[in-house]
Amino acid sequence: MTIPELLFRPRAIGVARTPFKETAHVPKGPGTKHEANGTLEILPEFEAGLTDIEGFSHLFVLWVFDPSEGFELLGAPPGEEVPHGVFATRSPFRPNPIALTVVELLRRDRSSLHVHGVDMLDGTPILDIKPYMSSVPAEALRRGWLEEAERRRASTA
Amino acid sequence: MTIPELLFRPRAIGVARTPFKETAHVPKGPGTKHEANGTLEILPEFEAGLTDIEGFSHLFVLWVFDPSEGFELLGAPPGEEVPHGVFATRSPFRPNPIALTVVELLRRDRSSLHVHGVDMLDGTPILDIKPYMSSVPAEALRRGWLEEAERRRASTA
Repeated sequence: MTIPELLFRPRAIGVARTPFKETAHVPKGPGTKHEANGTLEILPEFEAGLTDIEGFSHLFVLWVFDPSEGFELLGAPPGEEVPHGVFATRSPFRPNPIALTVVELLRRDRSSLHVHGVDMLDGTPILDIKPYMSSVPAEALRRGWLEEAERRRASTA
Repeated sequence: MTIPELLFRPRAIGVARTPFKETAHVPKGPGTKHEANGTLEILPEFEAGLTDIEGFSHLFVLWVFDPSEGFELLGAPPGEEVPHGVFATRSPFRPNPIALTVVELLRRDRSSLHVHGVDMLDGTPILDIKPYMSSVPAEALRRGWLEEAERRRASTA
């Protein structure tokens, strides 16, 4: 394997404070609702970057999966027996260990964002926060293997 | 400034082929619809990771902004006079130069994904692709300064 070019140097803009001290505590699998509250503690040096963020109800949070695990191009998500490609799942074992979570912004307190819907471990490094600006209308969305998995689950419940 | 810890080593999983050869060609500003088609050419070594992606109508694409530009914590988006925090905008001048675009998947041809809605330059390195699994209902979404900017624009149109 050749060493890939370093595209940029990722840095933490802050850390997430969540109720999850271990991976096993994070709710997983199709249909999981993330209902936990947490705090995104942004480093004071980046606080100016949060200006006007209060106006947005939802945010994208980009954060880092534990990169020591390596990646797996095919794998079965929790609760699934059929393996799917990593780019068709939210698997943490990705070529670039970047995670994406949509959270609801409850309030801002200086450089801390209190949010609803966290699914990352306590202490997770945060890479970026972006405003959630538009949605794909529900009627235009197809969700592949996930829809089938939910149907299977419903029919055996 | 201290050198930040290297959280992980970003690598390109492929490149985007788009009609945009220069930044000035990419449509920008509030209310912009991204209607261009393009191709995400994933490296053959990662093709297995695309297994079952055809079932999804929409994808998140994570890609890299030109990192040579540095970052700016406060800046006015195109068409705006008021500066906003970088984390409340889609500005390319971010502490981590990671971009996020939602595209519609038209079809897959081996390791090439033909998509609608690209807004990145031709040749842009791609970091990750994730399935778009759920939307925030339109009635639950608040979009801060962007809504105000759109109202201003509509009232002067």
